[in-house]
Amino acid sequence: MILTVTLNLAWDVTYEVPSVTWGGSNRVGAVRERAGGKGVNVARVAAALGEDVLAIGLAGGVTGDLVRADLDAVGLPHAFRPVQGTSRRTLTVVTPEQTTVFNETGPEISLGEWEAFQEHYRERLRRAEVIVLSGSLPPGVPRDAYATLTALAAGRPVILDADGDALSLGVSAGPAVVKPNADELRRATGRGPVPGARALRNAGANAVLVSLGHEGLLAVTPDGAWQARPPAPMAGNPTGAGDAAVAATARALISSTPWPALLRDAVALSAAAVRAPVAGDFDAAAYARLLPEIAIEGLPCPS
Amino acid sequence: MILTVTLNLAWDVTYEVPSVTWGGSNRVGAVRERAGGKGVNVARVAAALGEDVLAIGLAGGVTGDLVRADLDAVGLPHAFRPVQGTSRRTLTVVTPEQTTVFNETGPEISLGEWEAFQEHYRERLRRAEVIVLSGSLPPGVPRDAYATLTALAAGRPVILDADGDALSLGVSAGPAVVKPNADELRRATGRGPVPGARALRNAGANAVLVSLGHEGLLAVTPDGAWQARPPAPMAGNPTGAGDAAVAATARALISSTPWPALLRDAVALSAAAVRAPVAGDFDAAAYARLLPEIAIEGLPCPS
Repeated sequence: MILTVTLNLAWDVTYEVPSVTWGGSNRVGAVRERAGGKGVNVARVAAALGEDVLAIGLAGGVTGDLVRADLDAVGLPHAFRPVQGTSRRTLTVVTPEQTTVFNETGPEISLGEWEAFQEHYRERLRRAEVIVLSGSLPPGVPRDAYATLTALAAGRPVILDADGDALSLGVSAGPAVVKPNADELRRATGRGPVPGARALRNAGANAVLVSLGHEGLLAVTPDGAWQARPPAPMAGNPTGAGDAAVAATARALISSTPWPALLRDAVALSAAAVRAPVAGDFDAAAYARLLPEIAIEGLPCPS
Repeated sequence: MILTVTLNLAWDVTYEVPSVTWGGSNRVGAVRERAGGKGVNVARVAAALGEDVLAIGLAGGVTGDLVRADLDAVGLPHAFRPVQGTSRRTLTVVTPEQTTVFNETGPEISLGEWEAFQEHYRERLRRAEVIVLSGSLPPGVPRDAYATLTALAAGRPVILDADGDALSLGVSAGPAVVKPNADELRRATGRGPVPGARALRNAGANAVLVSLGHEGLLAVTPDGAWQARPPAPMAGNPTGAGDAAVAATARALISSTPWPALLRDAVALSAAAVRAPVAGDFDAAAYARLLPEIAIEGLPCPS
């Protein structure tokens, strides 16, 4: 079972607007809403691949209720711990020309709520084969939360997808895989993809998977280093492409898939996610078509 | 009692953002939320002035529940008819430089829901001394809804504050006062303030009150025509200034206040509403200070 942790759950709202008058009044066309947060997106993709998943985290207020109802409606197993605050929304304004995202910060989490979550996590861990720790930390949760959760996993493989302190402090606890994108890697290490990935391995990560947008994925692992590229850039919505790569990685860790095959799968699934209009979905036909077209290149073995 | 009707209720969400990267990702600072829609704002202002009010309309879904809870929390009397759809949100993005508003369209209202509302309105009318019909119509409600509700009022004074067809068709039923702003008046009549106001009187309105922003209010009535101006432009949030003018007008209709005194009050209250950060509030100290400073000018009697 893949256990995904989303501490800063989101209710994702998307407004389609023909064009936006900034500083003026705008009439919204279609409104789309659904449960979000990176861990929820990973769980959606993994479940669509046929994996057994459980999405946990913290959920509160009206938005927390909306998330639970939405996941119930699609049959995605979840067990979020209730909190006093209200889970955040994200708002995405989409015009034919551009996409603008507004991210609310999230509710203030009390020390008691954080401690109760750790107990909840410990119980849910027992059946987990892989643990996915994804996304931002809400206010009040200690900055080293992902290090704590990685340590509590007691040797079960952890995939960490975070930014800033949550990433830097989390790496020290020795996750199996860390998946930054190039910007996150640069913020954490001050370096480009290959030296940055080496730096995160030196800091404690067993393997580092760097998502490079249209350039695919770079993996620096104990078994070697590879870059996997899609045949051509995909037009679409890049939000959720990284979550699809994490879902593919989680599945591969369970089945002990070798890195080159894992990368092929993760790049094809990421590109197929770009083809789907919302994060957490992927275009199954594009996925099947892309799989044999991913180019894998071995890189000089990093020290 | 002032009965306010808000057919397209709103849950108003405001995001404060230090600066916005259009086409990028933005972190939201403070989030403010409260019940909105023009009729709700009118009721808030009238209640703050000590008037007996009742806010009615259509409310559905999670946002409808949030509106009810918010009005309960502030003790504002309300009786919204439930509908199957979900009431709309409005989202206002405020930076130090500009304010951008996104208005959702609102839920689809069925014919049965609209008929049930008319029955509900008929019952609530009995205690009403003035009726306020404000704001946009949600999809499914007939475009002549305000004419229907004005006719059902059977001689009780109606104040109509609407735009487009809702205004043009509503005027024909003979409301006591119509309150367009200059843009709405131009859309409805193709004319400027004085000839446009005369045109709306010819179309059926007893009196026309035109809100002119920093220029105050113009009234064209059976008793004469006046313009009332504030002493100086007010810096602040103009959303809700028109609703404050409507609240002042409703109060004046109950007490049979003559037009010049009504205009003085409405302009001072509008300007004091601009000084308050959210629609439906006003700055009580500014209101008291401004009242004696409003200049009233009689205009040549319109034919």
